[in-house]
Amino acid sequence: MTLLAEWLAGEGVGVASEALLASWNDTPARAAIVDFVATVSGAGSAGFVDPAERVAVFDNDGTLWSEKPIPIQLDFTLFRLAELAGQDPSLRDRQPYKAAVERDYRWLGAAMVKHYHGDDADMRLLLAAVESAFTGMSVDAFEAEVLGWLKDASHPVLHRPYLSCGFAPMVELLRYLEANGFSTYIASGGDRDFMRPFAHSIYGIPPERVIGSALGLDFNESDDDTQLVYKSKLEFFDDGPQKPVRVWSRIGRRPLVAGGNSNGDIPMLRFARTGSRAALRLLVLHDDDSREFAYTAGAEDALERATARGWTIVSMKNDWGTVFADS
Amino acid sequence: MTLLAEWLAGEGVGVASEALLASWNDTPARAAIVDFVATVSGAGSAGFVDPAERVAVFDNDGTLWSEKPIPIQLDFTLFRLAELAGQDPSLRDRQPYKAAVERDYRWLGAAMVKHYHGDDADMRLLLAAVESAFTGMSVDAFEAEVLGWLKDASHPVLHRPYLSCGFAPMVELLRYLEANGFSTYIASGGDRDFMRPFAHSIYGIPPERVIGSALGLDFNESDDDTQLVYKSKLEFFDDGPQKPVRVWSRIGRRPLVAGGNSNGDIPMLRFARTGSRAALRLLVLHDDDSREFAYTAGAEDALERATARGWTIVSMKNDWGTVFADS
Repeated sequence: MTLLAEWLAGEGVGVASEALLASWNDTPARAAIVDFVATVSGAGSAGFVDPAERVAVFDNDGTLWSEKPIPIQLDFTLFRLAELAGQDPSLRDRQPYKAAVERDYRWLGAAMVKHYHGDDADMRLLLAAVESAFTGMSVDAFEAEVLGWLKDASHPVLHRPYLSCGFAPMVELLRYLEANGFSTYIASGGDRDFMRPFAHSIYGIPPERVIGSALGLDFNESDDDTQLVYKSKLEFFDDGPQKPVRVWSRIGRRPLVAGGNSNGDIPMLRFARTGSRAALRLLVLHDDDSREFAYTAGAEDALERATARGWTIVSMKNDWGTVFADS
Repeated sequence: MTLLAEWLAGEGVGVASEALLASWNDTPARAAIVDFVATVSGAGSAGFVDPAERVAVFDNDGTLWSEKPIPIQLDFTLFRLAELAGQDPSLRDRQPYKAAVERDYRWLGAAMVKHYHGDDADMRLLLAAVESAFTGMSVDAFEAEVLGWLKDASHPVLHRPYLSCGFAPMVELLRYLEANGFSTYIASGGDRDFMRPFAHSIYGIPPERVIGSALGLDFNESDDDTQLVYKSKLEFFDDGPQKPVRVWSRIGRRPLVAGGNSNGDIPMLRFARTGSRAALRLLVLHDDDSREFAYTAGAEDALERATARGWTIVSMKNDWGTVFADS
């Protein structure tokens, strides 16, 4: 939070920061956001919430940036799995190495959809390979690997650098919330340490506010220069009911604003509300196949609940004047 | 961090904040702290470190507040275990319930010392009981339980409220570091959710900056009002090599300042230094049996390493003019 934003928030005049939402069309979704923020941050408002308790959590894949045809992290993992298959030819006919070598997005995309529908067989194959893909690598080397890959990688369908695949209106929303006293966090099923190296440049979110899935870590203290190195085992997969667990573990507060786009985000969005306190729940609807993608697979339950419970559905097509910052 | 402190840190003139260390005597330990902070925060200093990377982590028990005759959390757990033994008489002759009912601090203190010496038999008994002491309780109910107990609980030897058992010089050090652009964290073997309810009032540290051991959590979504409830299983015990793992998991940065007082803190203090960057490692030495306690049991290796490697040993007796704020 900038000094100006902090001052504005303290003074309760942060509502003027509405101008930060420049890429949002003047629609009911935008009004719901602005009204909620005014309610919790307005001095003298009946629904005033102490700034320390103004916590906003957002899923990443499909919520802050594109996740089709496959989550961007999977493309990074493909690059790594293909490299491993190059070193060990016996891997080449086994999934997911086969898909990695052949760059077969269909197998991988289907594995994600099956997961959201409750069939985890392919996801387990994928996770086992992901779990072992970085065994023994230090956290510092991993960070360099992510940044090195991301520097040149681009989206296979949108034909833009992955580093430009963040949704401009959501980045504006992060700044708008911060200008109104919120602390913003990413809370994603994606790997925490994969997101950390780029979360600041794309979203303005520092590593300590990135929550996600995690590989186990070992502390290697054999040298004077100690290292944290990855195990070949996931510590937890931060999706579904794990999301509120990880949000609490990290923050120790219930979120006041929660945003997602799929069934795996339902528990986190539900966790935001308590009997005594309202919450803003945002669900990004991918209905824009001219500027991004149109799909609801894996989000059916979330959309149904959003409609039934009055969560705010954000239509990319109708609510966003711009999707990507430089388009 | 206050606005003034943030401005001072940004301007690189935070060194003036030395006056914040009022309870420290003018000794080499204090000079080592002030010199290090000047080196990393002084504008134009060769050792300047970006404020975002100025992370300070401190153990809690024995570092920020007293841990003798037993860690304060154990007294809370005793109260709970005695309550459970009252409900189930078959527990009364088993350890650690027996010690809890009889308030036998010796058994419990010895279990801690044995643990630091590598003998975990009694610690395992204790942890098993601790693990199951709050099964099914919600995080909100647990917070209320901690605050309710702490409100009236006092130290059996120092005869002061537990809420006044924080070391005044260490609280000043937290403020001094923050005034110089640092983010301060607790990184303790104690239970994260036990510390969170009081960390702000005693140390000025909010829940999102409290790192510690954790019980597993389940997300209970059967009601409209969702709850996180404790499992009867520790997720991890945040001591020894787990400390750097948990610091990284939470923050995603190596600490620049690390403070502790026992062998269990060695890995965290070692983790603070890298080949390319110096670190300030502080080891609190309990050598003051007139104002607090004098002991080195469980800290032998840490003291040896501190001497060999030039870590800064903080003598309660010589370096602190005041130990407790209101004494």
